[in-house]
Formats: sequence, structure tokens, C-alpha cells
Amino acid sequence: MTFDLVAHDPQSKARAGVLTTDHGTIQTPIFMPVGTAGSVKAVHQREIKEDINAQIILGNTYHLYLRPGLDTLQKAGGLHKFNGWDRPILTDSGGYQVYSLSETRKIKEEGVKFRSHIDGSHHLFTPEGVMDIQRVIGADIIMAFDECTPWPCEYDYARRSMEMTHRWLKRCIERIDSTEPLYGYEQQLFPIVQGSTFRDLRKQSAEFIAEQGRAGNAIGGLSVGEPADLMYEMTELCCDILPVDKPRYLMGVGTPANILENIALGVDMFDCVLPTRNARNGMLFTTQGIINIKNKKWEQDFSPIDEELGGYASTFYSKSYVRHLFHASEYLAGMVASVHNLTFYLWLVRNAREQILAGTFREWKEKMVKQLMVRL
Amino acid sequence: MTFDLVAHDPQSKARAGVLTTDHGTIQTPIFMPVGTAGSVKAVHQREIKEDINAQIILGNTYHLYLRPGLDTLQKAGGLHKFNGWDRPILTDSGGYQVYSLSETRKIKEEGVKFRSHIDGSHHLFTPEGVMDIQRVIGADIIMAFDECTPWPCEYDYARRSMEMTHRWLKRCIERIDSTEPLYGYEQQLFPIVQGSTFRDLRKQSAEFIAEQGRAGNAIGGLSVGEPADLMYEMTELCCDILPVDKPRYLMGVGTPANILENIALGVDMFDCVLPTRNARNGMLFTTQGIINIKNKKWEQDFSPIDEELGGYASTFYSKSYVRHLFHASEYLAGMVASVHNLTFYLWLVRNAREQILAGTFREWKEKMVKQLMVRL
Ligand SMILES: [Zn+2]
Ligand SMILES: [Zn+2]
Repeated sequence: MTFDLVAHDPQSKARAGVLTTDHGTIQTPIFMPVGTAGSVKAVHQREIKEDINAQIILGNTYHLYLRPGLDTLQKAGGLHKFNGWDRPILTDSGGYQVYSLSETRKIKEEGVKFRSHIDGSHHLFTPEGVMDIQRVIGADIIMAFDECTPWPCEYDYARRSMEMTHRWLKRCIERIDSTEPLYGYEQQLFPIVQGSTFRDLRKQSAEFIAEQGRAGNAIGGLSVGEPADLMYEMTELCCDILPVDKPRYLMGVGTPANILENIALGVDMFDCVLPTRNARNGMLFTTQGIINIKNKKWEQDFSPIDEELGGYASTFYSKSYVRHLFHASEYLAGMVASVHNLTFYLWLVRNAREQILAGTFREWKEKMVKQLMVRL
Repeated sequence: MTFDLVAHDPQSKARAGVLTTDHGTIQTPIFMPVGTAGSVKAVHQREIKEDINAQIILGNTYHLYLRPGLDTLQKAGGLHKFNGWDRPILTDSGGYQVYSLSETRKIKEEGVKFRSHIDGSHHLFTPEGVMDIQRVIGADIIMAFDECTPWPCEYDYARRSMEMTHRWLKRCIERIDSTEPLYGYEQQLFPIVQGSTFRDLRKQSAEFIAEQGRAGNAIGGLSVGEPADLMYEMTELCCDILPVDKPRYLMGVGTPANILENIALGVDMFDCVLPTRNARNGMLFTTQGIINIKNKKWEQDFSPIDEELGGYASTFYSKSYVRHLFHASEYLAGMVASVHNLTFYLWLVRNAREQILAGTFREWKEKMVKQLMVRL
């Protein structure tokens, strides 16, 4: 895996790069659609590739480990073969879902004991085990096993949690560096900065992560309820410490505005369930602002969802028709809205990149942050 | 609207034809996917056209009348403009849904009073009103307002109901023939044969329908629970009376075997919710037989759903992956299964047509009826 920086915005810390994996290259900054259980919800694989133009998608280790399970994934030849997505895949470590979804969970030094939210069965995730699982899933980018603290969080808890995350990271690294990929292509581990919203902890964690010298680095534990300004403050602090020549991935972020602001601070990679989850609730992100498509206002608006955005879903279906689909609880409602929102998110980062390359990112960003968050 | 017969199978009553409408031609025999509320469930409009190769789809008058409603449909310029489907559309009369879905309904000579299943509001469907509604929806083929009797049904009830359906038909015809299309293209009324499973009533009804000399004719009130042999007996009786030179539409039928058997009796057009409804429950119709994709049997079968069928959904996705999608309750499960099943149904009628043209239909049909109904 290589990362080449091709441009820096003169008026911000935004950068444009190319991340090369054995499953192809990724033009950064990039947004990664979330394919929780091996499927980006309500979207065909063909659409992710040809309509949305996604370059990399996410899989959730927790979900995939429980269903379809490692035996099926390994026999399939990994997730790429299983779901037919032949571009890069990143898997999270499962930690976040264990904390948020599983029925009971006990965090100890060894790892996390939990019960499946599906059938109540008992499981243990350890740093070593989670590396092995991601080897089997076959992700191009494997995330370290960490604890993601809630917000707000006591200082002492955040510190002890961060220290454990660092000890877990050492175990992850040892495991990854002593095992081989199963399917013949490279798999790289990204460690994760924690430390809640405490400046000294974030600094300490970012320095520790930077020292590991991995192929890329992530910032976790943000976008968990803290004010946006505090998120930006932490992102900037971390980005300023993390290596310049490695991709930086801000986990679980966020709104279109969040993404643009964080690109300006030096983030290269994003993921979030927001575009797909909100799509299924009728919230559409467009080049002109945010639409709640269920509103009466759109009942007889026969114009396309977003003419300027382009693409099949956004230009073929009218606002009036999509509103009708939501009111009639049609499958197609969530399908159209999901393809549209993801098309928009990929358009957003593609345009951000073009603006960085042109040296005009900051001005454009200031304008877009306002325009995109308007409620239409 | 014209109908040209291009071939007759020498060993059965099967025929191949071309039905020409202002929205394009339909090669018969044909299967029409059901787009209840203006959307074929879980399928993008582009897929209906390019993957499934549907030539005509159905809309349900009852659903469309309630939602989005006539005002929106008329302002959109009709259903074709509203949902973006530019090939022919057939709408049912709404009768069947009024009887099966609405909360209370009262059938009188004037028409049917009912309450919406959505909001309990009161409505009256009359033969004249239902013609006007279908004018507004803008269907190429408009169905007469009838009463579809349940099965089994008392002889006296079936007779009185059929007689009322005939009186209603006269009112439908009078209304259609004294009004104009709203959107500049031709709309043709198809009357419906009723009479339950009583031979004398079916004969009487078919003769009455035939006498009206409309552009096409339908057979209703079958596939409502009666044994298949009784359905075939009634179909044959009706087909032998209905005009040879007009398309014959058997409403609400059916399984792949039902479709082939009825083609052999002289039916040209079919619709049924079976392929889409069963798809959402994990039942896949394939060229090799029927698959319950949720079964353990498919857990590690990484072969495509149906290699022989061809098409994106059926060859891109594996049985193992689709089984996983169903178990994980993913949107994509119903999406893949729906496109697949409809692709299969259109493949079925396309092949039936080719066999009729080649004069080999009956032999092929005998083989396929067995093969397609095998439980794999
Ligand atoms: Zn998020
Ligand atoms: Zn049916």
C-alpha cells in the first residue's frame, strides 16, 4: 500500500492524494459508504460502482463475524468474493458495535466479552482475535481493536481507556506482523487515536499512534455527541501530529459540512451511516441543500431530485414521485434515496479534491458549507 | 391499438402476436409485472426496462386513486410521466382491491361504497367513475369495473354478480366511448368475463363479452383458490368463445406452470404478484426449478442464482450471498430476488413465444412445466 500526496491547498490544511491498494487506487479525500453486513443498504453492487462511483466501502467486523460467519466468508474466499465488490474494502474492528449493539459486554484487559444481539450467544473479542477475523474477512485496510469512549466522558476513564487502547494496539501490531494475508493481497493495519475531547490525551495518543509507523492512521471517538467545534479542535490537533505522508481517516463522520471542515484540517478518509440511514428516513442531501422529501411542499414538484448532481437516481426520479414512494412505504423509496445520497457524498469529496487540485478549496468550502446545510 | 397474430402452435391453442399501443409494441404471450402504487416493488424503473425487459406493467387503480391521488397524477401528466415508465401501462379497475383491502364495502347496483384502508375515508366507485379515474391515470389499457366473486361461490350469487358485472360493463362502455383520452394517446377498454367456475355462466359471460367487440378481452375471477384443473377448464371454455383476433388477458395468474398451461389454451397476457411477493419471502423461480433461498442448503453454495437465465441480478449474486442477505434482513435481499424472479417470468414468456414461432411449443411446455416446478 502506498500513499502519494499530489496537492496541498494553499489556504487550509486540505490535501489531495492517491492511496494505492491491491484492489485498486483511491483518490483522496474520499468518502466510504458503509456496507454493514456486506451490503450497502438498499443499493445494488453495480450501482455502488457505476452510479455512486464509490472507490472503497466499509464492512463491519461485528456483523460479518456473527453473520454469515467466518467459515462461510473464508470458504467464499473473503468478503470481496462473497459480495462481489472487487474494489478496496476497509473493516472496522467490531469494537464500536460490541459497545453499542451487543446485549451484555464486559471490557477487561484481555478483551471484550459480549453476547450476540441476534441470538444471545457468548463471544470474546481480543486484539489478536479481531486481527484474525479481519484477515478472514479479507479487508484491504484492517482497523485496530480499540475502546471508543462515549461523550461526555470522565477524564480518568478517558485516560485509562486510551492507555488500554494503546496496549491493545501493541498486541494488534504483533499479531498482524506475525501473520500473513489469506488471499494473496496485502492487508494493512490502521491504528486509532483516542483520548475523548481532552487535548493532552489526544496529543499523547496521536504521538503514540504516529510512532507506530503504520501505512495509515485513524482518529476515533469523535462525532459521538460532542459539539462540532470541539470535534474540529480535536481533529486539527491530531492531524497536526499524525504523519503528513500517511492517509488520515476520521471515523464515523459525518454531515456534508463536517466532511468539508475536516478535509480543511487534513483528513483524507471518511465513513458514516448518515447518508444511507437518513435516506431511509426521507432526508435527501442535494447540491442546493437538505430536503425532507416527505414534506407536503414536494407533493407536486415534478422536477428531478437533483438535476445538477447528475446520475440516474437523482435525475430520473422526481421529488413528487419519491415523496409518494415514502408515503406509500414502497421499497423503492429507500432505494432511490440511498443511491441519491451516496451519489451526493461521492460528488462532494470528488469536488473537494478538484478544488484542492485547483488551489481554490477554502473559498469553495466556505460557500458550500452554507449552501449544503440549508433546509429547502 | 392493433393486434396481429403472427403464429399458431400446431399442437395446442397457443398463439404468438404483436399488440401495438401508442406507447410501443408488446410481443405476446406476455407477462406484466405489477406496479401496485406506481412502483414495481423493490425494482428500479431502469431495471424493469433493461434487466427484466418488461414490455408493459400494471398499476392498481385503487392504490393510485388513494395515493398519490388524481390531482397529483393529472398534474404530472398521467402515471407514465409520474413514475417515468414510458412503455404501455394497464390499470385494473380497483374492484379487486376494494373487495380485499378496504375496511367496509357495500356493493349496490350504483357501485361500491368503501372506506380507505389507509385513513378510513369514505369513497364510492361506480363504473363511470372508475373509467374517469383510469382516464386520469392514463393507462393504455383500461379494465372494466367488475365484481370478482370469491371461490367457492354459490351458483345464484355467481349468476347475479355476473349479470351485474354485465350491466356495469354497458355503463363502462358508454362512459369510455363518450369521453376522450386526457394525454393525447389512445386508451382502450377491456371487458372481463366472470361466472365463477360454472360452465354455463362462463359461457354466457364470454359470449356477452365477445359481443361487445372491444380491442381486447379479459378473463377474471380465476386463480382465487380453485383447483388448477378447474381454472384450466374455465380458461379453455372462455378462450374458445372470445374472438380469435383480439388479445386475451387472464387476470392474476399465476405460477410458471399456470402460465404455460394457459398459454396452451390461448391466453396472451398475464399478470401476478407471485414473482415479486414470493421474491420478498425468499422463493426464487429459476430455469432449474424453485429455490427457497433461506434454506441451510444454500449457505455455502457460491454459484450464481441462475447462470442459465442470464442478466445482472441472476448471474452476479451467489446463492450463498443472497441467503445471507435474507437472514440479515437486508433491503438488497428483496431487491435481488425481485429482479431475478421478474427476469425469470419475462424469460419464460419470451421462450414460450419462440417455441410457438418454431412450432415446438407443446413439447417444450410439457418438459418445462415439470422442470420449473421442481423444488431444488
Ligand atoms: Zn456517522
Ligand atoms: Zn396472482
